[in-house]
Amino acid sequence: MSSNSNISVGLLGLGTVGSGVINLIENHQEELVHELGCGVNVKGVLVRNLDKTRDVNINPEYLTTNPEDVLNNPEIDVVIEVMGGIEEARNHILKAFAAKKHVVTANKDLIALHGAELHQAASENKCDLLYEASVAGGIPILRGLSDGLVADKIQKVMGIVNGTTNYILTKMDDEGVPYDDALKEAQELGFAEADPTADVEGLDAARKMAILARLAFSTPVDLNDVEVSGISDLELTDFQYGKKLGFTMKLIGIANFDNNQVEVSVQPVFLKSDHPLANVKNEYNAVYVNGEAVGETMFYGPGAGSLPTATAVMSDVVSVIKNKLLGVNGHRFTKPRFEKVLKKPENRYGQFYFRLHVKDEVGAFTTISSLFNQLNISFERILQAPIKPENRNELAEVIVVTHETSLDKFKKVLEDLQNVEVVEEVKSYFRIEGDVE
Amino acid sequence: MSSNSNISVGLLGLGTVGSGVINLIENHQEELVHELGCGVNVKGVLVRNLDKTRDVNINPEYLTTNPEDVLNNPEIDVVIEVMGGIEEARNHILKAFAAKKHVVTANKDLIALHGAELHQAASENKCDLLYEASVAGGIPILRGLSDGLVADKIQKVMGIVNGTTNYILTKMDDEGVPYDDALKEAQELGFAEADPTADVEGLDAARKMAILARLAFSTPVDLNDVEVSGISDLELTDFQYGKKLGFTMKLIGIANFDNNQVEVSVQPVFLKSDHPLANVKNEYNAVYVNGEAVGETMFYGPGAGSLPTATAVMSDVVSVIKNKLLGVNGHRFTKPRFEKVLKKPENRYGQFYFRLHVKDEVGAFTTISSLFNQLNISFERILQAPIKPENRNELAEVIVVTHETSLDKFKKVLEDLQNVEVVEEVKSYFRIEGDVE
Repeated sequence: MSSNSNISVGLLGLGTVGSGVINLIENHQEELVHELGCGVNVKGVLVRNLDKTRDVNINPEYLTTNPEDVLNNPEIDVVIEVMGGIEEARNHILKAFAAKKHVVTANKDLIALHGAELHQAASENKCDLLYEASVAGGIPILRGLSDGLVADKIQKVMGIVNGTTNYILTKMDDEGVPYDDALKEAQELGFAEADPTADVEGLDAARKMAILARLAFSTPVDLNDVEVSGISDLELTDFQYGKKLGFTMKLIGIANFDNNQVEVSVQPVFLKSDHPLANVKNEYNAVYVNGEAVGETMFYGPGAGSLPTATAVMSDVVSVIKNKLLGVNGHRFTKPRFEKVLKKPENRYGQFYFRLHVKDEVGAFTTISSLFNQLNISFERILQAPIKPENRNELAEVIVVTHETSLDKFKKVLEDLQNVEVVEEVKSYFRIEGDVE
Repeated sequence: MSSNSNISVGLLGLGTVGSGVINLIENHQEELVHELGCGVNVKGVLVRNLDKTRDVNINPEYLTTNPEDVLNNPEIDVVIEVMGGIEEARNHILKAFAAKKHVVTANKDLIALHGAELHQAASENKCDLLYEASVAGGIPILRGLSDGLVADKIQKVMGIVNGTTNYILTKMDDEGVPYDDALKEAQELGFAEADPTADVEGLDAARKMAILARLAFSTPVDLNDVEVSGISDLELTDFQYGKKLGFTMKLIGIANFDNNQVEVSVQPVFLKSDHPLANVKNEYNAVYVNGEAVGETMFYGPGAGSLPTATAVMSDVVSVIKNKLLGVNGHRFTKPRFEKVLKKPENRYGQFYFRLHVKDEVGAFTTISSLFNQLNISFERILQAPIKPENRNELAEVIVVTHETSLDKFKKVLEDLQNVEVVEEVKSYFRIEGDVE
């Protein structure tokens, strides 16, 4: 056995995740020694209330209400932030870096908002900042993107990274439940919050995709670089057409990287039904990764939960300690290797679905198809469907599925469709994904 | 940057995987330095023919036909075995350990056959023996079982770990192609070998499951502990009943560990169609892991291929070097922590499907159900179906789906069914899996 001396860690916060971390450390000393050549001790825990009864085996003298007892404790090498919130957590972490302590956090909102600043501070102090648990707690995805595939170049990351919306979309798609009812059901089951905005408008997913893209491609993507649209306007009609066409509706985060140019978006997407992500149902999350060497892989798991999150935190703690013992702190997840260059619309490609309400008159169809022809966008399929009785006022519903085209052409044809007289309304449009590459 | 001095590795074999490893090392020096604090050099490659033209950038003076130049080269710390075969590879690896070199191998057959001996030799010499690439090359699963979930206790591993059989079963299930035709198609596409025995009889999957179980549970499972049955006798009739019942037929490796008792099997299983593994199609592989802390996760990816394999080999090389620098070689993947105790049939549980040909006479049904009742096995469903015209000689086809019962009761009722007079024949029986735990 190696003679590395024990490493001490401190916690900010002792809720369910914090308690889980302490229990994991306590119950896995032997495994930790196997991995690290040393044990791990908890030497300080910041709490709000010293007198609260806690279901965790911790020496009470290590509990404190004074952050300095953790952040400036010379015995502590690694600070584990599991308190949540933004400003206080941010200040504590910056102080920890100033005191040359490494930081592990599960705080997604903090990383998405202040990731660049925190990375900068970590880097200046040659410290590690790790946050596996901040994205899809139960999926060891960040580790997959770094350790496991250390020698690979990631080209594409596609993810279902929000359990609330995936639950709602599963209900809509599998059972034909309208959006409002599906949301209500999700709220009753505890899968959606009373104010579901951050979830259903795609913001939570966008935060996670910014983090994933930054790590997968080693380029400093932040939340503002992510194009976001949510699911609150989705109509069952499109789900029904999707079924006919072999598509499943999912809120998908897509991050692409080629020629050192990056694009990141979160949007409702029609996934071809045989794509592995199409079968990820209910509150589950999954991240699909396409690497130059490894090809397609996917990680699937629960999106959240305090035990998965604690496990992910512990993984990061182990990595930080390894890095410390190896003398390589301050690199991984920290310094982006590529400048950020956002991909221009003319270099972004996709297949698209349009649902149009079209005036039922001679030549209408020719007019529409010529709009696409002018831009060299070819059709994969066109459906013309009867409109429901109440709307049978001389309108037809037309579904257009294009072949792959650039995003600028898509935007142009969308504008043209909205301006041409025979089109009464562009009811909806979605990106289509899912060809196996 | 740390001042660890460079680490040198040697290769046994320079086929597509070996060349891939050299290219990855060459093209990722910067990332390797970020991870390790040092670079990685190739200082010896055992080949059969020095004069062959090779598509790889290696100093010709490092190529050799003499194994000693790698195995006893004092500069080399890590030996990478990518030559394949059994006896020669085994002897080389044992020599490498004797010379205190760590070993990374992609050789599944070797590990399944001689894993115990090689682990023993590694352990005695305080060396690492890693073989991520030997199981499902494209899925970073062994890493998931160790690093990523370092602090978790794995309870169950279920895997589709053979691409050939998964391709055949997908054809049979999705398109109703009979076994022989599906096999032929797989052979034509290069997914099955001319002699497909090792794949279709489940041996290849059994080797991988033995390796996965050993790692997941840290107990010395070997190939002989795996109960194996293959897919060559499967009939489309059962696939059709499966569809009606909401099941998909898959060749599944199942490894369970509770109360420190292990069971491992490979067999055709009826998976409930909403289980994530049920949607893993064609030649893809996936491994589903249930951990105490993390809950359900799944890893999905290509089962093989030289680039994924080379990437997995590189992951292991990075781990070995980290362990060396940390002074913790000789532990991970090496010393099992639990004695092997195989689970007894009375402690093994499952749901089962039976297809019976039953004499169409008064009381037959009562006789059958009383066999189950006597053993306290309850029914989930019973179907009685018309038998096809050509067999309509007073026989009925009866499908029984049980609730969960122990394996010894299953075996007893199977024996009873085979011996009772009203049952003309037990046509087939399968384990059912897929309740989300």
